[in-house]
Amino acid sequence: MGDKGDKIALDEAKKMAAYAAVDQWITEDTKVVGIGSGSTIVYAVERLAQRVWKEGQLGDMICVPTSFQSRLLILDHNLNLGDLDRNPFIDVCIDGADEVDSQMVLIKGGGGCLMQEKIVASCAKTFIIVADYTKKSLRLGEQWCKGIPIEVSPMAHVPVKLKIEALFGGEAELRMAFRKAGPIVTDNGNFLLDWKFVAKREYDWDEVNRVITLLPGVLETGLFVNMAIKSYFGMADGTVKVQNKSLPADCQ
Amino acid sequence: MGDKGDKIALDEAKKMAAYAAVDQWITEDTKVVGIGSGSTIVYAVERLAQRVWKEGQLGDMICVPTSFQSRLLILDHNLNLGDLDRNPFIDVCIDGADEVDSQMVLIKGGGGCLMQEKIVASCAKTFIIVADYTKKSLRLGEQWCKGIPIEVSPMAHVPVKLKIEALFGGEAELRMAFRKAGPIVTDNGNFLLDWKFVAKREYDWDEVNRVITLLPGVLETGLFVNMAIKSYFGMADGTVKVQNKSLPADCQ
Repeated sequence: MGDKGDKIALDEAKKMAAYAAVDQWITEDTKVVGIGSGSTIVYAVERLAQRVWKEGQLGDMICVPTSFQSRLLILDHNLNLGDLDRNPFIDVCIDGADEVDSQMVLIKGGGGCLMQEKIVASCAKTFIIVADYTKKSLRLGEQWCKGIPIEVSPMAHVPVKLKIEALFGGEAELRMAFRKAGPIVTDNGNFLLDWKFVAKREYDWDEVNRVITLLPGVLETGLFVNMAIKSYFGMADGTVKVQNKSLPADCQ
Repeated sequence: MGDKGDKIALDEAKKMAAYAAVDQWITEDTKVVGIGSGSTIVYAVERLAQRVWKEGQLGDMICVPTSFQSRLLILDHNLNLGDLDRNPFIDVCIDGADEVDSQMVLIKGGGGCLMQEKIVASCAKTFIIVADYTKKSLRLGEQWCKGIPIEVSPMAHVPVKLKIEALFGGEAELRMAFRKAGPIVTDNGNFLLDWKFVAKREYDWDEVNRVITLLPGVLETGLFVNMAIKSYFGMADGTVKVQNKSLPADCQ
């Protein structure tokens, strides 16, 4: 299959996963929904809007965004825009991921929105991942080699880079921008390091996340450990595979 | 003694502490110095500048600031301004504190500069505190009841406040501004919560700091645990008292 075919297949896979998760988790009892960021979430919001505007459901549902992109999606679909000042308790948060391992450890932040995504997810009773099959791994680093994004205070990018490399190996690279000189700046005004960890090394990701987050100058990591309870993967064969936390992948 | 007398005594105490620490810790071998923030640091920089410009010492010394205030102090005294991009390894960092307990746990951030202060201190081989005698406590909360400053992402101030209060009691208040509507904004563009903990409760400050720092939306806390190795206190009686980590206070 050529590039165009692959792209269509991936977009279809994202859409199937997003629709399945929205239909299973968002009910009339869902008052506040966290809206993730990225290409798969576009389909989740599309499906939410269909249910509101075509199927007459979920009229009171409030959507809390995780990025500028996510906020615009909510506004573009005329859904009720919320925020954590008014809605600090979220029923369900649906988000994408760059990689999901067999223990439901996630790498997020390829799109640079990890901090707001983690804040909103941490306020949710239930956190659900939607993704295409290329994001599904047995262990991190298997599918995706761009590294783990780490949001840092601009003044601290050099010492944080040096400390992470000394503590855990690999290489932490400042993410450079296109269409802007120098590094990208996040929605929060910070820089990102992409930490290319040692793929063959055994890491305790919970511990790695704690140690890195506690380094002064680190504002958030793209490692999401013990947060998501279920992942919906759109597969290449047209099915949706549901993976539960601490359980082997199960075909729905 | 009236207000004016107290003020003079406090300023003298700050100056004595700062001068003593600079004279003891900054030598010709000190290449890079971290410069803290606040009213006591003004005297530390004053003494550094005397040694450079009047006594002909420390000509190559580079000063890395911890705030806008600190950067201006360095520039005003014509000292060499550095930063962590070029100088990620600091020999000695000298900073003030709002409270120092008998175990050398610090509360910092009354002036709102905690994040940059902690970043710079964490890059220093040796971290020294200079303060007047009103900052010296047996246990935190004894002298200073303004709470522990916690720098938060603006979008997360409500859920972080609720989580800290649920986990550890007390009350976390958004710090409001004077001469600006709404809350103060830090040098990093964030908000501050002042967490008024329960003064009579026994806290494990190392654990409290870890748990709060790991809450998504918390960017840094004003709790500095296991960082400073020595505090210089200017006392009311005109002496300087030196306190070492894990040792009882010792009169110099």
